[in-house]
Amino acid sequence: MYRLYAMRRSGNCYKVRLALEQVEQPYELVEIDILKGETRTPEFLAKNPSGHVPLLEVAPGRYLAESNAILWYVAGGTPLAPDNRVDRADVLQWMFFEQHSVVPNIGAAYFWLTLVKGGRELQQHALEAWMEEGYRALVAMEKHLADRKFFAAGRYTVADIALYAYTHLAEQSDFDLSQFPAIRAWTGRVKSQPRHVAMDWQPESLATAAQ
Amino acid sequence: MYRLYAMRRSGNCYKVRLALEQVEQPYELVEIDILKGETRTPEFLAKNPSGHVPLLEVAPGRYLAESNAILWYVAGGTPLAPDNRVDRADVLQWMFFEQHSVVPNIGAAYFWLTLVKGGRELQQHALEAWMEEGYRALVAMEKHLADRKFFAAGRYTVADIALYAYTHLAEQSDFDLSQFPAIRAWTGRVKSQPRHVAMDWQPESLATAAQ
Repeated sequence: MYRLYAMRRSGNCYKVRLALEQVEQPYELVEIDILKGETRTPEFLAKNPSGHVPLLEVAPGRYLAESNAILWYVAGGTPLAPDNRVDRADVLQWMFFEQHSVVPNIGAAYFWLTLVKGGRELQQHALEAWMEEGYRALVAMEKHLADRKFFAAGRYTVADIALYAYTHLAEQSDFDLSQFPAIRAWTGRVKSQPRHVAMDWQPESLATAAQ
Repeated sequence: MYRLYAMRRSGNCYKVRLALEQVEQPYELVEIDILKGETRTPEFLAKNPSGHVPLLEVAPGRYLAESNAILWYVAGGTPLAPDNRVDRADVLQWMFFEQHSVVPNIGAAYFWLTLVKGGRELQQHALEAWMEEGYRALVAMEKHLADRKFFAAGRYTVADIALYAYTHLAEQSDFDLSQFPAIRAWTGRVKSQPRHVAMDWQPESLATAAQ
């Protein structure tokens, strides 16, 4: 069985948990708290030298890092991960966009405003840049979704899972989505997909174990 | 024939030019100068709402953005782009790492130190953060390459092309690579691949046209 090292409140980790549910793949969850430095321990760095979660142990001692690479692995062979060259490039295009335009802006704002909560000095100057660049990303997404139901390949794919993770947290991170109707309609469509789970959802087995 | 919108001095654009040469795919090059605002014109934004180069016109009016997605498209069906699920995830892992750990740090330092050259106020505080995070990325790469010839799938792939683009510019961007012997050996191996071209290389047809 796969073992997933993840932090429940991380959007990048949520992506992978959502995909694992949607492909009905059982896994063991190991909770890692970034805020407690648990990705910087020698034990964790031996598993992933770049020191990030999520990290998926796909076979004993064999680790796969990077949320979007894990999505492709987990969804491989399912309709979520298109196999032909054109659709694959279309999906990848939006997943790379997500990593450099959404995560470092909307994701960073979420991290500081919602998780760190001023526990360290709030980077006000940086926050303004994240908001500006975050809105620029949202404008590009809104324009693309104006005449499309999903981001790529004409259907719900790992591109939607990747983009949903931090976009659905944007309002918690002080972004105003009222001016983005196409994005709001799309988040509704993502939520209505079979076996969708929310970010705070936890498998029954874990809930039982915690009692 | 493909049409590539690119800036010659951009590492993200160089990746695509290198791959097109290595798969022997002819293309027309349209030079776009980011520093002159040519990615922010209405004409360009109509082609790519996120306002970035490289951009590949794969069919009349059909555009593909994101350097690493373009690499997968261009190299599709060749050994540069592995087709099985495990190798593909391995390659993607390093391409996503490149986009969030190499480009925003080594790439940003290159952009400010080499292209902008103080033409705008140099972001000294940001530069220090880019250097620190850039070295963190280099440490992870060095460790990975210590017992490997290439980044993923046991051979030269689009992951190496992606990572080479800004890593081979690191020394121009004030990074000291003397402490990274595995990275230096790897850049040598990349340079020795068939049909490798340097960043300042231009096709003969363009050189002729410019005379």
